[in-house]
Amino acid sequence: MKILLSNDDGIDAEGLYRLAEAMSKIGEVTIIAPKTEQSAAGHSITMKVPLRIYEQKVRNKFTGYAINGTPADCVKIGITHILKELPDIVVSGINHGSNTAVSIIYSGTVSAAREAAILGCPAIAVSVTDHNPEYFDAAANVAKELALKILDHKLPDGTVLNVNVPNIPENEIKGILPTHQGKSKWDDGYEERVDPYGNKYYWLTGKMSDTDKEIHNDQVAVQNNYISITPIHFDLTDYKVYEELKEWNLEEIKLDS
Amino acid sequence: MKILLSNDDGIDAEGLYRLAEAMSKIGEVTIIAPKTEQSAAGHSITMKVPLRIYEQKVRNKFTGYAINGTPADCVKIGITHILKELPDIVVSGINHGSNTAVSIIYSGTVSAAREAAILGCPAIAVSVTDHNPEYFDAAANVAKELALKILDHKLPDGTVLNVNVPNIPENEIKGILPTHQGKSKWDDGYEERVDPYGNKYYWLTGKMSDTDKEIHNDQVAVQNNYISITPIHFDLTDYKVYEELKEWNLEEIKLDS
Repeated sequence: MKILLSNDDGIDAEGLYRLAEAMSKIGEVTIIAPKTEQSAAGHSITMKVPLRIYEQKVRNKFTGYAINGTPADCVKIGITHILKELPDIVVSGINHGSNTAVSIIYSGTVSAAREAAILGCPAIAVSVTDHNPEYFDAAANVAKELALKILDHKLPDGTVLNVNVPNIPENEIKGILPTHQGKSKWDDGYEERVDPYGNKYYWLTGKMSDTDKEIHNDQVAVQNNYISITPIHFDLTDYKVYEELKEWNLEEIKLDS
Repeated sequence: MKILLSNDDGIDAEGLYRLAEAMSKIGEVTIIAPKTEQSAAGHSITMKVPLRIYEQKVRNKFTGYAINGTPADCVKIGITHILKELPDIVVSGINHGSNTAVSIIYSGTVSAAREAAILGCPAIAVSVTDHNPEYFDAAANVAKELALKILDHKLPDGTVLNVNVPNIPENEIKGILPTHQGKSKWDDGYEERVDPYGNKYYWLTGKMSDTDKEIHNDQVAVQNNYISITPIHFDLTDYKVYEELKEWNLEEIKLDS
């Protein structure tokens, strides 16, 4: 089995290494990951500067390539130019921090997996709910086992499994739940500071709201010590509103002012 | 009516100015847009460098702020820190180039509108199918008229209308169609070059495939000279696979290796 690994924390991240350790038990691992941290890169791709490929053995053990780009760039150039064929599966992570609810939209980790799905490859994104690597082994094992299950059951083209693992000892994890993306959002703010030259600048701050209550909800599941598995896809169409638009009399709209 | 405008081509782009001209006929326009071009920024947000806000009158006419960040940053800091309240509507564009099918995922223009929807504000993204500003007036007028329709009909929380306008004379446009996001994808490649120092670098290339045939499909609609309006949302859950996962016996997955 050919396995491509990527992430958004960068090629030197502990989570990526721990994932490689687990995945290498079931297949041949290639790591193609950003040269520098790319958290919150979303699904951005690089078009204004050219990409460069730096061969780099990861921890003297795994074949690796660092790319001066985003997570989505890594998977795109990784599959089309470096591997030159679709791997059997792409796994992105282990992300240091959860990717649930609206955070899925901002996540570079999830976008790397989604880029693989766009290119026609089964994909998993895996995140642990905080930055402490103590409990990464459970996340790595779940990714490995889930990869085997995907090969059994097949995923429809374009679907990614987004996995979030609570950062607690394995024996405290209550189980694994299929979930849907929650509705919790960030309560955003900006902290204003003044630089030494008297100019104002702003740091994004904020915490995730607690909107959702139902357990089959990514955010609620992990808060209640379950591993959350959310199937996501990239058809953003709101089909309900699509039907409603037919009643909007769009033909009334004039094109000249 | 309070109207916030943004884009991904940057605050000096012609499309944004033409949009402001049209929208100012129905309300009070504030422009908060990236200082530099941010095409393909996706839904990335800036967390490693602080944001700065540069007050800048747009063409000596419209209140404007340039932000050293992404389209999503502009809307986030624009609403939470500059306007300090939700505007009645956010319009992102007019993008120089179409945002249909999978391009929606990479688009900064669409992400600015989606960020507004996340924050609870009705939003429109509007793009013209190529870079020639000759036919931007139709796009600007559609955005204006559609904004009025949204105030009438209301959009559900979290829904964006993604509008694509063919770049042809108004009298050749056949009408306006509600559409869904198409399945066409980019046939990606990388062009290899060598810099003056002997090092290889890579530019992303590729063209959009022609997968879709049905007219209620964003890409097909604009190719057939219709204006395409696709309602999109940010719940990425694949509900069909969510149901299927219940048959995957996820409880069999062991957490230790």
